[in-house]
Order: sequence, then C-alpha cells, then structure tokens
Amino acid sequence: MAEEEVIVLNFWPSMFGARMIMALEEKEIKFEYKEEDVFGQKTDLLLQSNPVHKKIPVLIHNGKPVCESNIILEYIDEAWKDDKTLPLLPSDPYHKSQCRFWTDFIDKKVFDAGRRTWTKRGKEQEEAKREFIETLKVLETELGEKVYFGGNETVSAVDLVLISYYPWFPTWETIGGFSLEDHTPKLMGWVRKCLTRPAISKSLPDPLKILDRVSQIIKVHEFFYGY
Amino acid sequence: MAEEEVIVLNFWPSMFGARMIMALEEKEIKFEYKEEDVFGQKTDLLLQSNPVHKKIPVLIHNGKPVCESNIILEYIDEAWKDDKTLPLLPSDPYHKSQCRFWTDFIDKKVFDAGRRTWTKRGKEQEEAKREFIETLKVLETELGEKVYFGGNETVSAVDLVLISYYPWFPTWETIGGFSLEDHTPKLMGWVRKCLTRPAISKSLPDPLKILDRVSQIIKVHEFFYGY
Repeated sequence: MAEEEVIVLNFWPSMFGARMIMALEEKEIKFEYKEEDVFGQKTDLLLQSNPVHKKIPVLIHNGKPVCESNIILEYIDEAWKDDKTLPLLPSDPYHKSQCRFWTDFIDKKVFDAGRRTWTKRGKEQEEAKREFIETLKVLETELGEKVYFGGNETVSAVDLVLISYYPWFPTWETIGGFSLEDHTPKLMGWVRKCLTRPAISKSLPDPLKILDRVSQIIKVHEFFYGY
Repeated sequence: MAEEEVIVLNFWPSMFGARMIMALEEKEIKFEYKEEDVFGQKTDLLLQSNPVHKKIPVLIHNGKPVCESNIILEYIDEAWKDDKTLPLLPSDPYHKSQCRFWTDFIDKKVFDAGRRTWTKRGKEQEEAKREFIETLKVLETELGEKVYFGGNETVSAVDLVLISYYPWFPTWETIGGFSLEDHTPKLMGWVRKCLTRPAISKSLPDPLKILDRVSQIIKVHEFFYGY
C-alpha cells in the first residue's frame, strides 16, 4: 500500500479527534493533519466529507471519508489489519463486544457528566461531579489489575477512548474543586502509564491550554450572562 | 455448534430489543425469549447479565451476556459468521463503516425526536415533528433507488435498526398529527417491503398495541400532572 493518502480533519481540543490521531500513531500510519476552526467558517472539505453531521473528526482515506470517532477507530483497525500493526480490538467476537461495550459506556457517561462539571453551577454541578467520579470508579474496577484495558502488553480502543478525555480532567477538577488522585488513584496510575507511550503523549492536546481556554470562556459567559 | 444456548432478555415494545430478535430470526438462530417487566421488579438474570446499565436488551450466548443493541447486532453477525447465514454488515471495512454510520445516525436522531413528538406539547412538539420528518427524509435520500439499505437482495443492520422504530410510527403520527405517507412515501414503501420478510414481521410488536398503551400513559399523565 505505497500510495496511501490519509487526511484527518480535527479541532485541537477534541477528545473525539485525539483518539483518531492516537490510533493512527499507534499503528504508525502516516497522515496529513488539517485543523478545522469549528467556531468559525467550516471548510468545504469538512462539509463535503461529513455532509450529514458537519463535524470533526473525519478521516479521509484515499479520498473516502469516514466519520464518527469510534467508527473511525474500527475502520482504522480493519483497514490496516494486514499490516501487522497493533490491533485495537480483539478478534474474538465476544471479547470484541466487551471492548465495544466499554467504549460506548465511556462516551455515554464521561462526556456528558464531565461537561456539566464546568457548565453547571450549584446542585447540578454537584450532581455532575458525583456522576463523573462514579463513572471513573466503575472504569477503575473494570481495569482491575491489568496495565491497560487491552491487557498487560498493549492498549486497546478502550484505552484510547478513555485517555482521549484525560486532557480535560485538570479543567474539570480545577473548576469542579475535586481531585481524581483522591477518588481513583489506580486509574490515575493508568493515565501516567498511557502517557509513557509516545503515540499517546504526542497526540493529546495540552491540558493547561484547555484549562486556560475554558477559563476564558467562563469569564466571557459570566460577563454577559451574569452567572 | 450443536449445543448453542441463546437466551434473549427483552421488553415487548422496545425498538432496541426488536432489532436483536429480527437479527436472530433473519439468521435462523434458535433462542429462548424472556420478557422483562422494566417498570416492575428487574429479574436477577437481568441484573447479573447487565450490571452496569441494568437494561434490556441482553443476549446471553452460552452463558456469556452481550449488552447494547447495536453491539449485540455486530456480535450476532460475527459469532455466526461461519454458518453461511445472512451477513448483516458488509465485510469491506469502508462499506462496514458506512453501515455503522447510518445505524448510529438513526439511533442519535430518530429515537429522541420520535419520543418528543408525544412527550412534548406546543412549540417543542412542533420542533420534534420537524426534526423527525427531516431525519426520515435524509434516510429516504440515502435509501435512493435501492430495495433495502443493504442493497437490492437483502437487509443489512441499517434496515433492522430503522425498521425497529416502525411499530412506533403510527403512535408518533397519530399523536403528532402528521402522515409519513405524505412526507416520505418512498420510505414507507421500504417499510412495506421489509414487512414482507417473515423474520421482520413476526418479530415486531403490534403498532396498535403501542398506540393503545401510549394513549393510556398520556391520559394518566394528564390526570395527575394536568397537561
């Protein structure tokens, strides 16, 4: 496959984009990165590649676009299967179904509760924090004594999906006033282990940059909306 | 595979359960059906099989539970792959990704808008109707001139996921005061075509029974809540 053309459309703080980039890096697939300004004018390439949702991330492989982050992960895993690259999902149907169960669980629970830890106030914020921490505790239990969700040797799609949220953790902790090290220390150990992998550490956005931008957004919001 | 044991946990009006049943029927896989009363006491089997979400549908294959309807569909397709049964997803990675894109689209858009056509009133109900009809128009365009979403010969996971909502259409049309035959006549032709398949028609709940139960729920709600 000498003439592979791989283009990714992303927006730098996106957890959904980050997992796509990490998957490509883990599999050592070369790609061209194109940043989309999701708050500004969307590019023609984005609108043509994802006419239904008009959202990043998009992977364009030899001219064919694939949308929706976990569908992209499965596509990457299947399209580069024969290259002896790292598998992101197990081949056994039952183990694969369990892997899909946890990626689905993470996106259903972590994204929504995490966002509410900084967009809500008072009782709703407390509820969001409780939900978010509970979710991470469920995931810590699922990790158990394994090094990675994918086993002791290597990362799986579950690792990539969950670690894609990590750059947002300091923002949610700072604004929500809680410490994940206190609540889920073993899971934070897993975070540190993941970050030793170059494919992961170089693909994730800077957590402090996210905290800085979110702090600005909150200040603007408070100025105009008064809360 | 002589000693296969397949148990399904379902609640009769569920679109998520119906697609699991249709997939098993299309593939001619024998199974034992267990009805769960989701408004009453959940059975120990459900709680043990799906301890995280505690929801139907669940497929238990030789003692191993698989949860979440579209994950179940993929599991059924992969676990019974070698049996020369009908494939629900194409084997080509790109075509498979497109199939997953549409099942994901249907669940993201149809479920939520459909439910709001009867649980909301006034402006919110009108918005829900508009969204629901727009979503079906997008799907009608995607169907194009094909007999099924899976092609001219056979149904795919996209067909099963979308037709699983059909028993709810008369309820949403009656309460919302609109006709899908007027808005998406070609898609309604596809519904009729799907219903000629015994695996589909015998697996779907009775639309009039759903309308009847929903009408009762609305009456009780209006009596106690006053709207």
